[in-house]
Amino acid sequence: MKHIILASTSTIHGSDYLDYILPELDIFFNDIEDIIFIPYARPGGITHNEYTKKAQEAFKKINRTIIGLHQFDNPVEAISNAKAIFTGGGNTFLLVQQLYKNNIITPLKNSILNGTKYFGTSAGSNIGGLTMNTTNDMPIVYPPSFKTLGLVSFNINPHYLDPLPNSKHMGETRETRLKEFHKFNTQPVVGLREGSWLEIADKTIILKGELQARIFEYNKPPYEVETGTNLSNLK
Amino acid sequence: MKHIILASTSTIHGSDYLDYILPELDIFFNDIEDIIFIPYARPGGITHNEYTKKAQEAFKKINRTIIGLHQFDNPVEAISNAKAIFTGGGNTFLLVQQLYKNNIITPLKNSILNGTKYFGTSAGSNIGGLTMNTTNDMPIVYPPSFKTLGLVSFNINPHYLDPLPNSKHMGETRETRLKEFHKFNTQPVVGLREGSWLEIADKTIILKGELQARIFEYNKPPYEVETGTNLSNLK
Repeated sequence: MKHIILASTSTIHGSDYLDYILPELDIFFNDIEDIIFIPYARPGGITHNEYTKKAQEAFKKINRTIIGLHQFDNPVEAISNAKAIFTGGGNTFLLVQQLYKNNIITPLKNSILNGTKYFGTSAGSNIGGLTMNTTNDMPIVYPPSFKTLGLVSFNINPHYLDPLPNSKHMGETRETRLKEFHKFNTQPVVGLREGSWLEIADKTIILKGELQARIFEYNKPPYEVETGTNLSNLK
Repeated sequence: MKHIILASTSTIHGSDYLDYILPELDIFFNDIEDIIFIPYARPGGITHNEYTKKAQEAFKKINRTIIGLHQFDNPVEAISNAKAIFTGGGNTFLLVQQLYKNNIITPLKNSILNGTKYFGTSAGSNIGGLTMNTTNDMPIVYPPSFKTLGLVSFNINPHYLDPLPNSKHMGETRETRLKEFHKFNTQPVVGLREGSWLEIADKTIILKGELQARIFEYNKPPYEVETGTNLSNLK
């Protein structure tokens, strides 16, 4: 039985880290007190300790204890024994490189498939998809593969951003990038706007939060789905 | 003797493809009539033929002939014999993957170091740097390496974008991404704003266009340089 929350972002504009989703997390983590935190994505390059402290402060508000994975001598064992895991956002290339380097990809996947509760934000949600090919991050390091956990049968594009109507910037829009992705890949992509998340309970995948999500399927025009939509048939 | 133009973008808002830089290219390519076009980056996923046609139409305005590299039976030989080469923008991951797949990285570098004139825009400029770790593109395919041509002793960040003052979007700014890059890499990065380019004549590297560029060096605060600045000591 899988129990997973994949959130677009950790922070909504104008509120503190994780604040918008803490009430949801309080229910989600239920009677679990200790959560292992994977700090590998290091947003803005902060250290594992600094990042873990940030997560600890947020989770203290709902009386949960965060333990950084980097504090364990044997991270593989820690992941395998965890009751709950949270992977924070930052740089997806760095996160995936570190997961491979520490041989955590397979134990992490197995742990979640066996019922360990998993919560990811941004890069931590990206790795829930089939591959990291739809991250928005800069490739600051070279991971040994773009293959990720495949907790869902599609890819995720967090921080999904609609085209800015009056922009004079000539860089590609997010939609153009995802169209390019589908020239070389066939899996669907869920564009999760900020404040949206997917909640997965076994085989059910529900879009949560206030906003719609934008779905990109191979050889189809992109379309919107309302919050509350069941996306379990998307593959 | 190197002769290179690395431009941030192909197109300035409100004008046609390459229009802003055609007068410069007319001087740069001087008495050269035929230019080989590398269409591998496929912006928006268009075909090699479609992309080559687009380049042909632009270069027709300055009476130059564009020949797509994909039209040659032996692309390595074509690159080695070329008098001038233009690599268009699009997706840097795809461009680099294709350059490696077709064994063109080394012949292309050698050709340019031996005096073949080179013009790149966006992804085509990115590959002029030491690595492609500072591209803005989505990693839609997995290249065998992020190492690129190293025509200059730094990296390039094309379409450099200043932070939007009133943005509520919580994705990373370009400056934050480049700071993260410097947690794991030490080479400088030139943030080239749209309409800017670097012109390289042997060992001289001059910033051209109307705007300043933003320079990111390891362990230093980022700083601005004026157009006309000689960047040949940046390494």
